[in-house]
Amino acid sequence: MADSGLFVAFEGGDGAGKSTQIRLLGQALVARGQEVLTTREPGGTPVGTAIREVLLHGDHVAPRAEALLFAADRAHHVATVIEPALGQGRTVLTDRYMDSSIAYQAAARGLDAGHVRGLSLWATGGLVPHLTVLLDVDSGTGHERRGDVHDRLESEGRDFHDRVRQGFLDLASAEPDRYLVLDATLPAESLHEQVLTAVTDLAGVAAR
Amino acid sequence: MADSGLFVAFEGGDGAGKSTQIRLLGQALVARGQEVLTTREPGGTPVGTAIREVLLHGDHVAPRAEALLFAADRAHHVATVIEPALGQGRTVLTDRYMDSSIAYQAAARGLDAGHVRGLSLWATGGLVPHLTVLLDVDSGTGHERRGDVHDRLESEGRDFHDRVRQGFLDLASAEPDRYLVLDATLPAESLHEQVLTAVTDLAGVAAR
Repeated sequence: MADSGLFVAFEGGDGAGKSTQIRLLGQALVARGQEVLTTREPGGTPVGTAIREVLLHGDHVAPRAEALLFAADRAHHVATVIEPALGQGRTVLTDRYMDSSIAYQAAARGLDAGHVRGLSLWATGGLVPHLTVLLDVDSGTGHERRGDVHDRLESEGRDFHDRVRQGFLDLASAEPDRYLVLDATLPAESLHEQVLTAVTDLAGVAAR
Repeated sequence: MADSGLFVAFEGGDGAGKSTQIRLLGQALVARGQEVLTTREPGGTPVGTAIREVLLHGDHVAPRAEALLFAADRAHHVATVIEPALGQGRTVLTDRYMDSSIAYQAAARGLDAGHVRGLSLWATGGLVPHLTVLLDVDSGTGHERRGDVHDRLESEGRDFHDRVRQGFLDLASAEPDRYLVLDATLPAESLHEQVLTAVTDLAGVAAR
């Protein structure tokens, strides 16, 4: 870990405030002199942007095809963006990573969680974040925050988003050391302080 | 098998004459009163057409991402086109199927063949053709036949296409009952007669 940058993923339903927290954390780390790369899935690369269009703004996509497209986006993202940045010692903050696939495609869509996880592990060569920040929000609050414009996944019903939320919470329970679970209804500044503390602690461990 | 249409895949390098043979076979079967669907991978659906663009005409795609995109295209193709047609008793002729992934992504690109096959089997729910026609052609002849316009995979070097060819031949050797291997340098009419005989024999078996 000493030879590599820190890798932090932000997960949670749409409207949970991931992009705000990534921006605040990125600014704080840059102010401390760190080199930071912020990115997102799907779509963190030109190839990914094309895949994102297919996934979120096109026709119905068969469930296994959807899972494979997210994995393809992730494979390209890791190989061409995340791994090179980590190799240069940069801190990488990503808006969604493999836990989103498990929460959306397995917990919510009903595909086998072991298969979906296996796809992501193969896609990434086993690259797992040092820390995953889960911004937990109930589906009603997330819906209000998202406003009126929804992509194909955002437009799914409340049951779907309840299963996504529970999927994330189950993943966090299974690996408590790798997760920071936060109540996303708290003020953004308060959430940011908790995120920054966790990342600073982690960086201290990583630098030893 | 009696409740389902026949599923025939055509495989081989680019320039082997797959589309000619599919056209001749489709015409012959229609003339005999069969309902025939001809399709292709990648790109046999609107979603697949978008994926095909990413794969063949865009930027460099990381090898695992490439394999996952082909599998995504296949998953959607099977779920929305091939399985519904077979379920209606139609004969489905496809230009490329899962053996292309193994020949191109594993044999030629160097990914693990077991993983690549596993992706396709998961993507398709285990749907394997009743017959796979391999139009075998050496890479030099295929190159001449393709002419001057090449997509990203066609523009790979001769070594790459030699490995693709050997990958197909190895697959055919491993499952001789499911393969018809033909010398693609023979006249199209002669090849067509052999394909039609094999499909007619298979249909006879399938109807029993």
